[in-house]
Amino acid sequence: MKKSLLAVALLGAFAGVAHAQTAVQIYGTVDAGVTKRTDQTLAIGKRANNTLGFKGTEDLGNGLKALFQLEIRYEPDTGTIEQGAGGIQRPLFQGQSRVGLQGDFGMIRLGRGLTAFQETSTAFEPWHGLPTPAGFQTDLQVAGYTSDPLGYPGNSTNRFSNAIFYNSPEVAGFQLNTTIGMKEALGGPYIGKGTAAAPQYVTGKEASTLPYSVTATYKNGPGALYIANERNAVESRLWSIGASVMTTPDLKLMASYQRQNQENTVLRNPITKAWILGANYTMGPGKILAGYGQKSPDGVAKTKQASLGYEYSLSKRTYVYADLSNKKGGVQVPPSINTYSLGVNHAF
Amino acid sequence: MKKSLLAVALLGAFAGVAHAQTAVQIYGTVDAGVTKRTDQTLAIGKRANNTLGFKGTEDLGNGLKALFQLEIRYEPDTGTIEQGAGGIQRPLFQGQSRVGLQGDFGMIRLGRGLTAFQETSTAFEPWHGLPTPAGFQTDLQVAGYTSDPLGYPGNSTNRFSNAIFYNSPEVAGFQLNTTIGMKEALGGPYIGKGTAAAPQYVTGKEASTLPYSVTATYKNGPGALYIANERNAVESRLWSIGASVMTTPDLKLMASYQRQNQENTVLRNPITKAWILGANYTMGPGKILAGYGQKSPDGVAKTKQASLGYEYSLSKRTYVYADLSNKKGGVQVPPSINTYSLGVNHAF
Amino acid sequence: MKKSLLAVALLGAFAGVAHAQTAVQIYGTVDAGVTKRTDQTLAIGKRANNTLGFKGTEDLGNGLKALFQLEIRYEPDTGTIEQGAGGIQRPLFQGQSRVGLQGDFGMIRLGRGLTAFQETSTAFEPWHGLPTPAGFQTDLQVAGYTSDPLGYPGNSTNRFSNAIFYNSPEVAGFQLNTTIGMKEALGGPYIGKGTAAAPQYVTGKEASTLPYSVTATYKNGPGALYIANERNAVESRLWSIGASVMTTPDLKLMASYQRQNQENTVLRNPITKAWILGANYTMGPGKILAGYGQKSPDGVAKTKQASLGYEYSLSKRTYVYADLSNKKGGVQVPPSINTYSLGVNHAF
Repeated sequence: MKKSLLAVALLGAFAGVAHAQTAVQIYGTVDAGVTKRTDQTLAIGKRANNTLGFKGTEDLGNGLKALFQLEIRYEPDTGTIEQGAGGIQRPLFQGQSRVGLQGDFGMIRLGRGLTAFQETSTAFEPWHGLPTPAGFQTDLQVAGYTSDPLGYPGNSTNRFSNAIFYNSPEVAGFQLNTTIGMKEALGGPYIGKGTAAAPQYVTGKEASTLPYSVTATYKNGPGALYIANERNAVESRLWSIGASVMTTPDLKLMASYQRQNQENTVLRNPITKAWILGANYTMGPGKILAGYGQKSPDGVAKTKQASLGYEYSLSKRTYVYADLSNKKGGVQVPPSINTYSLGVNHAF
Repeated sequence: MKKSLLAVALLGAFAGVAHAQTAVQIYGTVDAGVTKRTDQTLAIGKRANNTLGFKGTEDLGNGLKALFQLEIRYEPDTGTIEQGAGGIQRPLFQGQSRVGLQGDFGMIRLGRGLTAFQETSTAFEPWHGLPTPAGFQTDLQVAGYTSDPLGYPGNSTNRFSNAIFYNSPEVAGFQLNTTIGMKEALGGPYIGKGTAAAPQYVTGKEASTLPYSVTATYKNGPGALYIANERNAVESRLWSIGASVMTTPDLKLMASYQRQNQENTVLRNPITKAWILGANYTMGPGKILAGYGQKSPDGVAKTKQASLGYEYSLSKRTYVYADLSNKKGGVQVPPSINTYSLGVNHAF
Repeated sequence: MKKSLLAVALLGAFAGVAHAQTAVQIYGTVDAGVTKRTDQTLAIGKRANNTLGFKGTEDLGNGLKALFQLEIRYEPDTGTIEQGAGGIQRPLFQGQSRVGLQGDFGMIRLGRGLTAFQETSTAFEPWHGLPTPAGFQTDLQVAGYTSDPLGYPGNSTNRFSNAIFYNSPEVAGFQLNTTIGMKEALGGPYIGKGTAAAPQYVTGKEASTLPYSVTATYKNGPGALYIANERNAVESRLWSIGASVMTTPDLKLMASYQRQNQENTVLRNPITKAWILGANYTMGPGKILAGYGQKSPDGVAKTKQASLGYEYSLSKRTYVYADLSNKKGGVQVPPSINTYSLGVNHAF
């Protein structure tokens, strides 16, 4: 494709490009590094999700735009599509697959993507939602909650399929984000209060309620707040709040809290609470990340995590990183796990 | 990719692009909407096939061109590759995967794609071959016939794998299109006159005859005709004819008829006939689609379908749509099914 | 995408592209042809691997570059991702998935790709490593050796997953290439000296040694040499040497030899030796390829292969080809197999 883009561009010029404000943009991330976990062999792994995406926007006039986004997720260490529990391949466009319209009314999209809660909350987490063991999003910030309990085996747990996504415009610092899923049957089963032989939700069963996710955010100068409420297809409910503040242009402090209620699907101890404190400190091309948090399922041992990380930017698109993390408690074996990682992240 | 295309284009310019008339073109469609079927819950679904494709043409001089096309098909509501019966994933390049040469002699391609019959006939169907329940292609126009009976489970039924595709140049309004498949074994089994335990074609069995598909089309001013003949890998044969006419620049009327003979693989009632009448009426940015058709397997109850649709173009590449459809008879449960859908279609 | 590239490029220009030397390049190959093998039906097949890739390079200043490459491999005759033994789909980015840095020190990459041995040796094989039956790479040049014995079922056998790749700069004609895999468990099982019920390496077992691959190459005017040493995850070891010389600007002669030791995983006859002689002769747009080779597993019948091929270039990116080949001996049925193929190869 190298040499011929000009030719194509010139053809475009001669053919007239007055109404051609849209193009397919190809973008993505490749992140790979070396990881050592207390009880495992040295491994090649990732810190961030790896993406290869295709997106575009078309100007329809009168402030109206059409837009789409398709995002592949993959594992660079093995070359496969991103894999979930048990090595099961996730959907090709695991990142998202959405189409919609944007205008003065905000943005409305159809398809599959992160729920409003899952998308909003990562901005208040010190590793901004990265799936690395040093990050707090996957295990602590969402307290083990899953947005997609009835999805295909292996599916990621923080997205709605068959959903409608609405983001309001930002008015006086306020924004509203809403995701509504359908009751459509997907995968399953979901054992819940049942047994493996007689699960509470059998394979192919529809949701017992309309899944939804709503967040409101507020930004004012150096400060930001959010509040979130979500209910999934098996009627688990969660509330979450968070705040961040730039105390100086270089230092961002953040905190979040979450409460989850699984009354509909567990026999006892349905409440899980979690909180996280975090900081990001920028020093020229370098950035320090730090965080501490706890998850407290009622009646089960607490999980406590402390992490420290460093990113060094080689350019706006490429940085190297080092993370170290300790997690204690909960049901993990061994009871205390250290993880070290060192790698490179390249955006394109 | 946004900012750097110019840099690349300039590099191309300096390196000389005299022979570089080719480029990879990325194109596709995202179509998603809300669907309600009589006996099912409200769902997010598609009206059109969703594609992400890569194609290119190279000028070889003397009127000769090399060309290729690779087309991914996917489901935007779940982010997966397109799925066939039983939720089985289809090939990554389900749309097509072909390479070939084009010149004064016409176009010859190798690989996998729609058969000549399946490709030709959609221009004579009021929903131009879209897989929506309102359309007539999938069920009625091809009368339940499959071009790929020995393919992998889940494969689409209107393509040949391992095939040679030839399209003649258009001469005095006439064009000839031919697809010839190999006898190569693919998937299977195909039960046919056998039983599940002893299928007529066992898994991995080669075709018992050379599959082929031939169509001739004729265009003359506002009118167009086609005639098609196809024989698949298990010796099912079909004939199909169709016609369309633009009675005014805004109104297109169309009709098609098809007869299928499955003598080689069914014990009784091997003949199925189907016919469709359709109309497309354009009013500025709006377009009305209407159709009625019947499928008559001998000895089995007739299927009757009536559909009405409306498309409203927001631009040349984006339109919103609404369809309603009723299907009666055949072996479906319930015996009468209504389907309503509302959505957006964006091409890029 | 056609018309809008200029618009995008111009936007890029206005936005400033001083640091935007990088772009995603889309590239690939489509190769399809007709093949006839002594004991099989006429088939549509491939001569070369079929690729669709995405790659890019970012200039970080001071001679340092970030780079990535993601390469899909697929089968154009069926539209599927490339398939391994038993029709099992290989990883989406089977070609490679790597990210890394390049500078005065050479190039270091992380991810999955060809081992140093597998990549180096193909330049000394008359079909430059193409997987066609006429080529010698797949069966003879690597003597049935696999670099990835513990990988997922169906995985290609000449790559390391979870690996670090280092290529030195070329100094006075010398270059060093090193690949080091991790012990990370992937797939399996590997029967080895065990049985299907009790394999030597059970599923999910880690490598019993650190896999590595090292090659040194030397170029001097018309001549080139290489020497390679590799040890895989089940402790099989191989040595390989090769040489090539351009006797005239049109004639390249080449030879290679390889010795493999499987003591750790076979009960008897652990040594396999192989050698290949080859020639490429260019005549204007045409090129003749010829080769002869033998593989000698100790205690098992020799395999002998002779091949002749012809390529005719229609442009720098497109050629048509014809190959014929005979393979005798070994354990194949029938004992002598002829293969003929005729097709087109198009790069984009």
